[in-house]
Amino acid sequence: MTNPTKIRARVTVTLKNGVLDPQGKAIESALTSLGVEGVEGVRQGKLFDIELAPAEAERARELLTAACEKLLANTVIENYRIELVEG
Amino acid sequence: MTNPTKIRARVTVTLKNGVLDPQGKAIESALTSLGVEGVEGVRQGKLFDIELAPAEAERARELLTAACEKLLANTVIENYRIELVEG
Repeated sequence: MTNPTKIRARVTVTLKNGVLDPQGKAIESALTSLGVEGVEGVRQGKLFDIELAPAEAERARELLTAACEKLLANTVIENYRIELVEG
Repeated sequence: MTNPTKIRARVTVTLKNGVLDPQGKAIESALTSLGVEGVEGVRQGKLFDIELAPAEAERARELLTAACEKLLANTVIENYRIELVEG
């Protein structure tokens, strides 16, 4: 029996629209001073590549949502998105 | 004449395989202690949503590569990926 493959997912966490991003602003001006022209906006976010046990296939999305709500995202100012990676 | 739309791109920066991710490990154990079961691996990365001036359409990828090489990614331990967002 082949080894059941792990569930793989990517979670991306980004600031909600309207939330100021001082870090993004700092990166924007740093890029300009480094000679990278034409940059008109930078917003930084986080991403998490997560592996789940194969047995959790059924409730992968439920577990990942709990992970986001409990730890990975500050849902007051951040949005999160869960993508299950095929294969 | 409609307002020429900005070039929008998402840059994702992730640790190269084999590079230890203590932060990912910490998140993994925190999720377990928060009762999120089945988590077998977490690796954290960064993402940047970047807007470029419309005039830079031709060399958007060149500018974004320069941004990654100069600032957004530590190419010794990190990989970066550039996705130009349509529309």
